[in-house]
Amino acid sequence: MASPTLPKRSIWTWGLEADEPSDAQRAEYAKRLSEKLGVSLACPPIPRARDLKLRAPRIAPPDSIAAFCFTDNHERAAHSYGADKERAVFGEFPNPPDVVAYPANDSELEACLDWCSNGGYATIPYGGGSSVVEGVTPPEGYDGIVTIDMSRFDRVLEIDDVSRAARIQAGVFGPALEDQLRPSGFTLRHFPQSFTGSTLGGWIATRSGGHYATNHTHIDDFVESVRMLTPAGWWESRRLPGSGAGPSPDRLAIGSEGILGIITESWVRIQKRPVFRATAGVLLPSWEAGYEATRQIAQAKLWPANLRLLDPELTRDGAGLDGTRALLIIGFESAETPQEWPMRMAIQIARGAGGEVDNAEIEISDGTGTPTGRSGAAGAWRNSFINIGGGLTDGLGMVSGTFETAITWDRWPDFDDEVREATMRALTEVCGGGTLNCRFTHVYPDGPAPYYTFAGLYRAGCTAQQMADVKKAASDAIMKAGGTITHHHAVGRQHRPWYDQQRPEPFAMALRAAKRAVDPNGVLNPGVLIDA
Amino acid sequence: MASPTLPKRSIWTWGLEADEPSDAQRAEYAKRLSEKLGVSLACPPIPRARDLKLRAPRIAPPDSIAAFCFTDNHERAAHSYGADKERAVFGEFPNPPDVVAYPANDSELEACLDWCSNGGYATIPYGGGSSVVEGVTPPEGYDGIVTIDMSRFDRVLEIDDVSRAARIQAGVFGPALEDQLRPSGFTLRHFPQSFTGSTLGGWIATRSGGHYATNHTHIDDFVESVRMLTPAGWWESRRLPGSGAGPSPDRLAIGSEGILGIITESWVRIQKRPVFRATAGVLLPSWEAGYEATRQIAQAKLWPANLRLLDPELTRDGAGLDGTRALLIIGFESAETPQEWPMRMAIQIARGAGGEVDNAEIEISDGTGTPTGRSGAAGAWRNSFINIGGGLTDGLGMVSGTFETAITWDRWPDFDDEVREATMRALTEVCGGGTLNCRFTHVYPDGPAPYYTFAGLYRAGCTAQQMADVKKAASDAIMKAGGTITHHHAVGRQHRPWYDQQRPEPFAMALRAAKRAVDPNGVLNPGVLIDA
Repeated sequence: MASPTLPKRSIWTWGLEADEPSDAQRAEYAKRLSEKLGVSLACPPIPRARDLKLRAPRIAPPDSIAAFCFTDNHERAAHSYGADKERAVFGEFPNPPDVVAYPANDSELEACLDWCSNGGYATIPYGGGSSVVEGVTPPEGYDGIVTIDMSRFDRVLEIDDVSRAARIQAGVFGPALEDQLRPSGFTLRHFPQSFTGSTLGGWIATRSGGHYATNHTHIDDFVESVRMLTPAGWWESRRLPGSGAGPSPDRLAIGSEGILGIITESWVRIQKRPVFRATAGVLLPSWEAGYEATRQIAQAKLWPANLRLLDPELTRDGAGLDGTRALLIIGFESAETPQEWPMRMAIQIARGAGGEVDNAEIEISDGTGTPTGRSGAAGAWRNSFINIGGGLTDGLGMVSGTFETAITWDRWPDFDDEVREATMRALTEVCGGGTLNCRFTHVYPDGPAPYYTFAGLYRAGCTAQQMADVKKAASDAIMKAGGTITHHHAVGRQHRPWYDQQRPEPFAMALRAAKRAVDPNGVLNPGVLIDA
Repeated sequence: MASPTLPKRSIWTWGLEADEPSDAQRAEYAKRLSEKLGVSLACPPIPRARDLKLRAPRIAPPDSIAAFCFTDNHERAAHSYGADKERAVFGEFPNPPDVVAYPANDSELEACLDWCSNGGYATIPYGGGSSVVEGVTPPEGYDGIVTIDMSRFDRVLEIDDVSRAARIQAGVFGPALEDQLRPSGFTLRHFPQSFTGSTLGGWIATRSGGHYATNHTHIDDFVESVRMLTPAGWWESRRLPGSGAGPSPDRLAIGSEGILGIITESWVRIQKRPVFRATAGVLLPSWEAGYEATRQIAQAKLWPANLRLLDPELTRDGAGLDGTRALLIIGFESAETPQEWPMRMAIQIARGAGGEVDNAEIEISDGTGTPTGRSGAAGAWRNSFINIGGGLTDGLGMVSGTFETAITWDRWPDFDDEVREATMRALTEVCGGGTLNCRFTHVYPDGPAPYYTFAGLYRAGCTAQQMADVKKAASDAIMKAGGTITHHHAVGRQHRPWYDQQRPEPFAMALRAAKRAVDPNGVLNPGVLIDA
């Protein structure tokens, strides 16, 4: 059967086929970058679905579900990876799913999952396909692989404007979700960096980290109830603002990365669109002064929406500063109350910790709805942050990437030193050198969630293996120094070795047993989080 | 072996033996109450441990653990119940534990749990013994019962004043925990109503609801990591301010009510003792106006520490008002920033919703550390709330009790009507009438956590069965109207029938399997939450 009438996903880069750069744009970018780096970079030719010689599908869906199952090259290639398409750009699709299913309602999903479970096929729940940790990559060793794409579950079904909550289908992408809430004056206000290419179900399955830098920010905190189909039946919790009845069923579903069931919908807490805003960018004389100021503000429990700290490397490269100072971006927002007071309190604390900011540069937009934070150093950073050029660097063989974690304040300075040292050593070994910077994406009273970005000096012949070598060195250092292997990127298959060191062994036993109970044939996303 | 050298628990009422009322005090109280009610109430004689004819211990601990195991009448009677001692006052102890163990360290606990698991004895983890839901009552049908009292695990082991977190042993009682934090200027500030008679481990095992009325209040939010002994080994999570690595191991331990393991210690988030405070009591013309004002303040995300709404019945009986108006107590507190501004915002919202409060009665104590909320209507309520007379009503045959739940705002008014109607109908059938009042103990942006207190008119011959009949009617109504069977009292054995309706069936399958994996002989608190 032909592909469904949904926007086509790109098979080789992040996002939709319609947003892919052209061959000319890629060649131009490679030329400019070659000149900048003093090397000669060549783009690989973009793979086209029609030219791929994929392994023939090994299984065929029964008539009862065939109408929404697809086996064409494009669908199978597009679902061979998440955003982790390092091999796709070279046309490498060694283990594509045999069938891609697009159920549109509960009964279609039930029929599809029944077929998969009875057949013992590896079954991959697929949301936005923004995984960077091989969370949706089919596993080896199965005679049949079915990817279930949830993007037809794309509606906001119900809005409760008294409790400020909405019942929303899991397959809706971020922008479509916000579009459907906007006419009622509400917003979920959960903006992970993958926002445009990820779904509510994916956020819940991976414990996504959203917009807020402090207080409620993980999707965990926004979930009021979860509806999830397991091979053993529907797992559906009550809508409750709070409960103390046993361990939270939702908290076991949240972060389960598709191994326990397929999330179909959720009641989530929404909020009125903010109209009161305040933003300021505070300069700190050093990285150390920056994180000390950040800690003090976080512990004052003013709960700023934004409390993002950029290290001196990042303020130089991303915000045009001189490379000695850290930048702390502080933002408050509310639909109900003016935000000047909490901003004054935060600024007072920041200045007490050595921060510098002109009063004229503290932007207060109370009651007008006007966005703040679009000028000055904060604005420069914002522009560099949102202008990520999709598709242009794919296949050029650059060693670059990101990793993120969380750690308590008492261990943070040593942790940062050890992680930087290990990562730079690996970059030197692998690439002859490189750059590394850090920012805090989220901050808790008891510690930050640092986010590191690395890039190797270009050296001919850089490979996915070299990337993996650097990432391994960083991950080993994170584990050794006591952090978490992921604060919001999830575990998938890529983080498994470190996740296995991190989680308590009896918890792994409990999770394995729980999976066997609800997925007796072990078909759901096998190899993710635990071995089946 | 004789009892341990710890303060002796009362065998028949809440708290310690040293705090029991005397026979004379009980007789005097019964006389006064008899006159007030126009009936003749007689106290049963207080049971004395030495007089009890308990079933002989059916098992004996091996020499290796005998030094901390006790089989005397007092220990076995005192561990036959939690705070739910309705039968104890009549000297009824039909199913006492055979052995009460007081391990003092990890190796003693390991040896004890090994013995229990290998022997297949029902093993009851015991903290403060404040359960009101038969959470620590030994189950029927076992040939051996061992209660493990954790009160020797009573130390704050480590304070991290940079991250504001502390490593604390699970068996420490509330007051002793605060005493150990105080010299460092910190507080956990988790004050459930059971505070004096409950422990950190019990709070974690039961998802206790603490001091704060909004934002972080459940112990769930204060837990940074958990260390728990299961029959399959140690379950110990990393100390992390946040993590997205799979489903949270801590969130499966939290609320597990002793069925997965015995919590021995936890890193918890602590805070500086507040010095900035603001309190006000706002009068609302009706219950409806009261909860509307409460909702608006909760949704403005000012995060007051106190946002407690009392219904007109309660303001009449507990705060001396005229019985038509609701009272909303609003409190803010901080160690870092003055609290006048958020209080002004909250008052503005409350007044906009019809609330009345004189400016002179808004107490602001900024920077001095002086407590607020000790005068006016808020103060009157506070005094009636903390002066609960332990032991005086036991055995008098009064039908009275409490139940609590949570529900979203959209369903709240109907929910309240249905629960009140069902409870009053049951009180009429059982006692010929009675009283019922409600307050919000905690408030979320998406709904309140209402707490109901009922009392029957006195009728000769009231029994535990009549209490259970009223509680059953209330619980049925809560379930039918969509609430949770408990917001912070836990499930235990008493709430099981409703909990079984509430939790998703696949989650119950997962939890059963998880328990079998870590407790293969099914010894830990069998019958609580799930059948073994």
